[in-house]
Amino acid sequence: MSTDESYERGLRETERLLGSRLELPLGKGEPESGQDFRRLAIAHTFGDSWSRSGLDDRGRGLVSVAIAATLGAFEPLRGQLRIALNAGVTKEEIVELFIHLQAYAGAARAFESYQVALAVFAERA
Amino acid sequence: MSTDESYERGLRETERLLGSRLELPLGKGEPESGQDFRRLAIAHTFGDSWSRSGLDDRGRGLVSVAIAATLGAFEPLRGQLRIALNAGVTKEEIVELFIHLQAYAGAARAFESYQVALAVFAERA
Amino acid sequence: MSTDESYERGLRETERLLGSRLELPLGKGEPESGQDFRRLAIAHTFGDSWSRSGLDDRGRGLVSVAIAATLGAFEPLRGQLRIALNAGVTKEEIVELFIHLQAYAGAARAFESYQVALAVFAERA
Amino acid sequence: MSTDESYERGLRETERLLGSRLELPLGKGEPESGQDFRRLAIAHTFGDSWSRSGLDDRGRGLVSVAIAATLGAFEPLRGQLRIALNAGVTKEEIVELFIHLQAYAGAARAFESYQVALAVFAERA
Amino acid sequence: MSTDESYERGLRETERLLGSRLELPLGKGEPESGQDFRRLAIAHTFGDSWSRSGLDDRGRGLVSVAIAATLGAFEPLRGQLRIALNAGVTKEEIVELFIHLQAYAGAARAFESYQVALAVFAERA
Amino acid sequence: MSTDESYERGLRETERLLGSRLELPLGKGEPESGQDFRRLAIAHTFGDSWSRSGLDDRGRGLVSVAIAATLGAFEPLRGQLRIALNAGVTKEEIVELFIHLQAYAGAARAFESYQVALAVFAERA
Repeated sequence: MSTDESYERGLRETERLLGSRLELPLGKGEPESGQDFRRLAIAHTFGDSWSRSGLDDRGRGLVSVAIAATLGAFEPLRGQLRIALNAGVTKEEIVELFIHLQAYAGAARAFESYQVALAVFAERA
Repeated sequence: MSTDESYERGLRETERLLGSRLELPLGKGEPESGQDFRRLAIAHTFGDSWSRSGLDDRGRGLVSVAIAATLGAFEPLRGQLRIALNAGVTKEEIVELFIHLQAYAGAARAFESYQVALAVFAERA
Repeated sequence: MSTDESYERGLRETERLLGSRLELPLGKGEPESGQDFRRLAIAHTFGDSWSRSGLDDRGRGLVSVAIAATLGAFEPLRGQLRIALNAGVTKEEIVELFIHLQAYAGAARAFESYQVALAVFAERA
Repeated sequence: MSTDESYERGLRETERLLGSRLELPLGKGEPESGQDFRRLAIAHTFGDSWSRSGLDDRGRGLVSVAIAATLGAFEPLRGQLRIALNAGVTKEEIVELFIHLQAYAGAARAFESYQVALAVFAERA
Repeated sequence: MSTDESYERGLRETERLLGSRLELPLGKGEPESGQDFRRLAIAHTFGDSWSRSGLDDRGRGLVSVAIAATLGAFEPLRGQLRIALNAGVTKEEIVELFIHLQAYAGAARAFESYQVALAVFAERA
Repeated sequence: MSTDESYERGLRETERLLGSRLELPLGKGEPESGQDFRRLAIAHTFGDSWSRSGLDDRGRGLVSVAIAATLGAFEPLRGQLRIALNAGVTKEEIVELFIHLQAYAGAARAFESYQVALAVFAERA
């Protein structure tokens, strides 16, 4: 099992979970090593965690959404919401997660993060 | 005193503090239970906290702005700034709050949150 | 459905989830209204969220642990870990949650919060 | 107005607000410049913010407690609670602040930070 | 050494580090004291820290970027990235910093903050 | 290059940076998979980031301390401070880092995290 393997496995996981391989081309003016940033991020998240069998996709989906929503990391939250819904978490369960977030992490953060959920719900109206 | 009552009381508080009832219609593709998220958020913040007598509106306004600005929760911060100004907190006191925030929570967060204050100041120029 | 009812329902939920009612007596020198802080906290978390049927206890347990671990709120994390294990989340799933947390919220926060998990694992060795 | 003056003014403010000048001796093995860290921290907070007239001590006390409690910065929170109580904020108002914090920043953070308030309440039982 | 001197020194530092003095005019509807907010922020950051000799500009640049990226304070992060690159930190070192951030503060925050780095890289393509 | 190789390389890095291999035995009642949590944490931080050549140990040391101090992750901060000092960052530079942190992330968080620096300084008095 190698980091390169972790990356390859990670790419396969993004395909399985998102329906297409995550494409992250080098940006304008970005150094070549920028690809290492992306490769390690994908290896560590999708390759080394999402691929594991100890927690099912639904559980991992709930956990991922909860982490990104608590941090207020909106673009990652959007991706995790799509993954969670693809993995069988229902919109209703997402709403319950935000009700829980509102109680434990507060209305300010929950209200803000919920706007991202609304945008993802609208994609699937 | 019921959660429904808390919600109703909360709606009356938003009217008292913002000049109109907070309208939060269901979004496109949002499940029905999304209304429970909004109702509980309003019940817990406006119904169960803003309605209490132990701290006056000015004090609660300062506290609300400080919490949202420290978290960097920008859209909630915008609402809390409007409420605080409506409750008699002056623009000058808001500036002092951000000077305090800059010292205790740092220039990075304070500078960022202050942009929201500038937008609200401009509404009332 | 009343806030008093929310509180009573919340107390019953703590009994169901923790095996005994959460006892939170008034502290030395604490004003009487300190009970309102506790009552509202229990009403909003256990009464108005844990009691809902839209997400099962296992899912809510995972979400609660993820939120508290991401925030680095250690004493609440301890309680949520106990609740999650009581609700049927396995220790192995808790480990997977922390592997996920390490990837998404980082090794610094995950390592720190995992110490609380180790203490709760030891209670149930 | 000099940073040295800010520091001196800050020391006088700590005396006014806490009843005695904040004493922060150099630690074992700490480089001499460690005093600059303390001097700048006191100059920036007490010298350049607490000394200003645009917000009264009660308002600044509420704001300081709200910031430290939201961050979960416990030792600074302890100091800010003492200052707020000395400045005429009542224990009851502190409780209201935490009820507000519980709603906006969540039960996990509020519950944790409230333990520091309980310790300060006990000092003044 | 005065706060006014700190501010003047800070302005000279912004010129040295950014190529031009930071211009921060009063906003529409902003009270006069808003200038104190800016002056104190510049005095405390550029005047009292960047001007110090104990850590070189490259080191301070790395530290500033790490702090702003960890907080997710995007607009301040943009400024700190420009300063760091002006001070001789290379784009490749910035990428390494984000690889480190991804490991210690997590992929969610790192991925989000890295978008700001991509925008600054593009300015210098 | 494999995750197992990343872990082995990470262990060698902890030995190089800390003077001895990081020993993290399984805790009482901890499931076997707890070793995966540790192995992945070490692989991702020490194996996949510290081992890279694009930023020297001093730079990585400053960045690591800044991240952990900004997060208020105290136990990880302690380790990063030891690593930074071993890598040639001076105590004086650590003080400067905290002066910078005080300005950008605020006195509340900086003061709290600085207590960990004081403890590490005392180890090397």
